[in-house]
Amino acid sequence: MKSSIVIFDQFTDIDLFLMWDLLNRVRLPDWEVRILGDRSDHISATGIAIPTHGLIDEANHSDVVLFVSGQGTRAKMKDRDWLSRFQLKPGKQMIGSICSGALLLAALGLLEGKTATTYPTARQTLESLGVTVEEKAFIEHGDIATAGGCLAAQYLAGWVIEKKAGEEWKRLILKSIKPVGEGLSFADAPDLGRLYAPVMSASK
Amino acid sequence: MKSSIVIFDQFTDIDLFLMWDLLNRVRLPDWEVRILGDRSDHISATGIAIPTHGLIDEANHSDVVLFVSGQGTRAKMKDRDWLSRFQLKPGKQMIGSICSGALLLAALGLLEGKTATTYPTARQTLESLGVTVEEKAFIEHGDIATAGGCLAAQYLAGWVIEKKAGEEWKRLILKSIKPVGEGLSFADAPDLGRLYAPVMSASK
Repeated sequence: MKSSIVIFDQFTDIDLFLMWDLLNRVRLPDWEVRILGDRSDHISATGIAIPTHGLIDEANHSDVVLFVSGQGTRAKMKDRDWLSRFQLKPGKQMIGSICSGALLLAALGLLEGKTATTYPTARQTLESLGVTVEEKAFIEHGDIATAGGCLAAQYLAGWVIEKKAGEEWKRLILKSIKPVGEGLSFADAPDLGRLYAPVMSASK
Repeated sequence: MKSSIVIFDQFTDIDLFLMWDLLNRVRLPDWEVRILGDRSDHISATGIAIPTHGLIDEANHSDVVLFVSGQGTRAKMKDRDWLSRFQLKPGKQMIGSICSGALLLAALGLLEGKTATTYPTARQTLESLGVTVEEKAFIEHGDIATAGGCLAAQYLAGWVIEKKAGEEWKRLILKSIKPVGEGLSFADAPDLGRLYAPVMSASK
């Protein structure tokens, strides 16, 4: 099970790292998460160079493909060379976006006939691409989902984790990042230990 | 106004990046946020090399010093050479921690006579250092604060932003990461524009 997160220059730091960290908490054999780009690293909105694990072409062979957000989406949504490297297949792949990443799904033709959500500052641009935008945190249409607002990455990652690892991993992982006393308690410590355990053997 | 975030190998990705991203949303002149370590980069819990902006010694001259969390805290809390490089001054500096970062505050003697919070899996170790641990998301004692649970980084960053940039920046920035329809709405778009605007001149 390979999930790929697609980044580019000027991406929103938290939108990558919230999805990335949550997806990496699944401790199952063959569970792999990769950060993809078109260079060996990309510079975030705050100026940090984040190394990539592979090229964007790898997204075409991933089980899950998630697009991050940020000002960089405005350049990429018009970058025909970059867009043409994606041949994504809803029905065979789960495909999602956080915030303005929806602009990239739209540019790839993946939102045709579908409603979607995005970040408030990207709504008009998404509508200009012909998409009906709804004011919701998370919208799922089969294998395609969009999330709006950074913390809605929890819904997007939760959607992937539930479908690909199961409801129990989703529950534990989303709980593991809650504030203490607000969804997470000291009594959860033994349960949380599963997130640090060695990956279970596939044969058990 | 310089805030420093202290990292080390095996730090929890989201605990760095949630604080980092929020603090970087303040658009005021002389507002500076730095990631400090004892090398030019540190490897996160998920294996990503994150570049540092400077050495940990710089924390001693920062207005705000925040410690991240992760398994790496267990080595650093016993690393006398590393600890001895910090000469932090509550009363002159705001000092805080997220999750198991509280172990480092304790090791530095900053929690003596104070209650604190931490991540559930770090509670016993923090108690073994003589700290009275409370099951709360955020505990503030003057210039020293501890937060427990990754998303409680919002309280920690909010504490810094309110004290150093003001209540209005805190409100806008914490709202800016909420899920759409759950604290953030499309009608907020003009307000959010302030987070992308060029930094205001100090003279205006």
